[in-house]
Amino acid sequence: MAASRSRKAQGLTHLDARGRARMVDVGDKDVTRREATAEAFVLMRRETFNAIRDGKVPKGDVLSAARIAGIQAAKRTHELIPLCHPLRITGIGLDFELLEAKGGGRDGVRILASVKALDRTGVEMEALTAASVAALTVYDMAKALEKGMQVGPVRLLAKSGGKSGDYRAGGQG
Amino acid sequence: MAASRSRKAQGLTHLDARGRARMVDVGDKDVTRREATAEAFVLMRRETFNAIRDGKVPKGDVLSAARIAGIQAAKRTHELIPLCHPLRITGIGLDFELLEAKGGGRDGVRILASVKALDRTGVEMEALTAASVAALTVYDMAKALEKGMQVGPVRLLAKSGGKSGDYRAGGQG
Amino acid sequence: MAASRSRKAQGLTHLDARGRARMVDVGDKDVTRREATAEAFVLMRRETFNAIRDGKVPKGDVLSAARIAGIQAAKRTHELIPLCHPLRITGIGLDFELLEAKGGGRDGVRILASVKALDRTGVEMEALTAASVAALTVYDMAKALEKGMQVGPVRLLAKSGGKSGDYRAGGQG
Amino acid sequence: MAASRSRKAQGLTHLDARGRARMVDVGDKDVTRREATAEAFVLMRRETFNAIRDGKVPKGDVLSAARIAGIQAAKRTHELIPLCHPLRITGIGLDFELLEAKGGGRDGVRILASVKALDRTGVEMEALTAASVAALTVYDMAKALEKGMQVGPVRLLAKSGGKSGDYRAGGQG
Amino acid sequence: MAASRSRKAQGLTHLDARGRARMVDVGDKDVTRREATAEAFVLMRRETFNAIRDGKVPKGDVLSAARIAGIQAAKRTHELIPLCHPLRITGIGLDFELLEAKGGGRDGVRILASVKALDRTGVEMEALTAASVAALTVYDMAKALEKGMQVGPVRLLAKSGGKSGDYRAGGQG
Amino acid sequence: MAASRSRKAQGLTHLDARGRARMVDVGDKDVTRREATAEAFVLMRRETFNAIRDGKVPKGDVLSAARIAGIQAAKRTHELIPLCHPLRITGIGLDFELLEAKGGGRDGVRILASVKALDRTGVEMEALTAASVAALTVYDMAKALEKGMQVGPVRLLAKSGGKSGDYRAGGQG
Repeated sequence: MAASRSRKAQGLTHLDARGRARMVDVGDKDVTRREATAEAFVLMRRETFNAIRDGKVPKGDVLSAARIAGIQAAKRTHELIPLCHPLRITGIGLDFELLEAKGGGRDGVRILASVKALDRTGVEMEALTAASVAALTVYDMAKALEKGMQVGPVRLLAKSGGKSGDYRAGGQG
Repeated sequence: MAASRSRKAQGLTHLDARGRARMVDVGDKDVTRREATAEAFVLMRRETFNAIRDGKVPKGDVLSAARIAGIQAAKRTHELIPLCHPLRITGIGLDFELLEAKGGGRDGVRILASVKALDRTGVEMEALTAASVAALTVYDMAKALEKGMQVGPVRLLAKSGGKSGDYRAGGQG
Repeated sequence: MAASRSRKAQGLTHLDARGRARMVDVGDKDVTRREATAEAFVLMRRETFNAIRDGKVPKGDVLSAARIAGIQAAKRTHELIPLCHPLRITGIGLDFELLEAKGGGRDGVRILASVKALDRTGVEMEALTAASVAALTVYDMAKALEKGMQVGPVRLLAKSGGKSGDYRAGGQG
Repeated sequence: MAASRSRKAQGLTHLDARGRARMVDVGDKDVTRREATAEAFVLMRRETFNAIRDGKVPKGDVLSAARIAGIQAAKRTHELIPLCHPLRITGIGLDFELLEAKGGGRDGVRILASVKALDRTGVEMEALTAASVAALTVYDMAKALEKGMQVGPVRLLAKSGGKSGDYRAGGQG
Repeated sequence: MAASRSRKAQGLTHLDARGRARMVDVGDKDVTRREATAEAFVLMRRETFNAIRDGKVPKGDVLSAARIAGIQAAKRTHELIPLCHPLRITGIGLDFELLEAKGGGRDGVRILASVKALDRTGVEMEALTAASVAALTVYDMAKALEKGMQVGPVRLLAKSGGKSGDYRAGGQG
Repeated sequence: MAASRSRKAQGLTHLDARGRARMVDVGDKDVTRREATAEAFVLMRRETFNAIRDGKVPKGDVLSAARIAGIQAAKRTHELIPLCHPLRITGIGLDFELLEAKGGGRDGVRILASVKALDRTGVEMEALTAASVAALTVYDMAKALEKGMQVGPVRLLAKSGGKSGDYRAGGQG
């Protein structure tokens, strides 16, 4: 066949290895208990905040939709983030806090996502993905009321398990 | 930033914990061999039944499509059922029985779905999902012949493995 | 290459066309408003029923999880049912009724799923899939209380739109 | 059967309609050209920023992975966000800006995601989802260098098309 | 916030546009009837070929599994191929020919996949993806018999519809 | 109910077991390190080849899109190939060689996909799927330049791990 004939009679041009994405092999790492917690904020006006708190958003109950969406997204992290490994997730939880601004800032919904697994690599991306998709769902449910809502910061609060050691975010709150 | 400033100066409103969906952590459970079997029926008129049995449904072979659909659905159970864990399924099988009613009832296709896994929680939902999606596929393949077909009962016949002990359904219906 | 050379020098064995699954072309049909409604029942003991009604199922709020699961499943019907077309769904709604048995029967949750679309083929399978997956989710949420719950009957109640005319189910069963 | 008998002899308990999530029917809206643009930031230390800019992140080229991830996520928005409609996306583009902080702040990657569609409802969620998943991918690719990176703000910059009129975000932040 | 402050006080580094993947907007193209046909071969030894032809492959009926897999894959093409648009597929068909080599070459299964759509861009990738995944399924079903089976050539045979005109492949190979 | 009554009063018609697809249970096999490597070729004209090599394909960088697509596809193999088990993939890598034909043949891109896992069954299908989808992505990215590109041969080069022993392909084509 043309391809194999040509291979024998040619100079191979190996592509430069720089920038080659690769799902790194974690087969030599130990299976340990992994846990990660991430947070995400959705900032909004008082009227939007009150509608969410009082269950008056016309599209339906905001937080129960966001909770399910976040749990579902955590399980699909490896489909969304190209180099993530499929992991053995053992537990996923999302909590919400309604943060009423006392000063001049915007009110906010704070989402806390915790993911646990028994595997060879950490679940930071699962926690961050759960928090992000839950935040996007809050936006979607309430966007008829306010298009200017803002998602973020989304950040890792803590991780544990694995050889690289534990991590705990510094003060933002 | 507004969000973090406001958090310091405010009263937190923790949401009531009642009704909070959560994918319960199973990380402390033992990995054991899990097996579950579920059944589903599709009830139909004699003409529809005969067309399925004789391979004369215009859309194609009903049972081989249903079989593949059920196997594929079992693998996606955790995507469909919000609080299901992704599990290490080791085997999936579907069997079909053609049940010709001797009395006045409707004929039926009986679907038996068995799922095996080595994991920390059971595979009941995988078996029930496989049986249900196979039943829906039977409906889809034959619905040009009869829209009044009826799916059900769908139920768990048996499960084994895990600390909560084995389960076996009582009389069939 | 071997394959093409051999094709010239051989007798072709066309496979028997019988039983060939095929996603029938609907390109010549008109785009019309399509609507379908399906129902599914989940039968259970009084204790389970009360726990669902009173929001006391430990895994979380049963009906809001089932509602989201049903909506999500309707959108994925063409991934689950092999010969279903991907359709332009314009709306999906699920309603639940809690049916307390007055006589000796089991209590039940009745799920009504309605799907609307503007497309060339009907949305029966989308409605049936939504109702089925919502029913499976009810089972999953409450299965720690009762493994003997039973799903079904699942059936099409009504469809409209399209050349084949409207359909309305007769008496219940 | 128990279910249908019991339904005849009982009082129906219609669930309170409050909080019922529902994918609102858009079948009566006109198909128009829809466009939305969203932005997301990933904030990071100078060392991380330089590694991304210079293509020295060990896991591979950060921005080309993030670009593909964002495009792929936009197409799956309706799977991730429960009440989003599946839409006829006609185009998706992601652009990145590397924002070197001149003062004391953190450097950042700014992601701009634009989505176009011809449909009956807008593509805000598609643009926000593309930007968010691209941002999460930047985090994933570079997290070995810095776990404290922060995603956000993620916000809608502009939308056009549809009866509700165009939207343009106010000052950036 | 740090990000927006730094953006005001900095020089923007627009990334070089070269190599930027982008899902090109097809919103200005006309909706026309699109059709594409692709073929794929799986080459194998006589023993494997006979087992497939005679339905004696232990894993089950090879061609009906391959057919369903190909149809399902066509519907998911836009999830697999990063820059593919989600399209309105109206029909999908797969046919198989069993090609017995008369001379010294290997026997083969020839897969013909045809996809039809009404949309603004072509369905070549859908046809090629259906043929490829069906071929991989043939391999999977029979690989216990022969690991040396070979897939290919996979190629586009014909496409029609759209402004760029029709295409028909030349001689076979 | 009709179905169960009829079952008691009838002759069961067990379907012929011939051809029954079944995901074989691997629960009794040992977890071992599994590795597989597959290759795929895309053959093309010199002009197309040069455009890919020089990064001048209008749709964007061909090989980085193909790499991500191949990695993502490997993770979804069990969704695409009906009887594949979901596996614990620990690593995925794709490499590309640009093969300039010295004689009269067509130039080619050679894709090498390697997949590693720790599981009870092999990863041949994951490697073949990664290579195939990467090849289809090369086709998609460059198809505006040449519709006559050809994918194949796609074949398994090597596998190791598991009781059935290692496999290494013979001469390369």
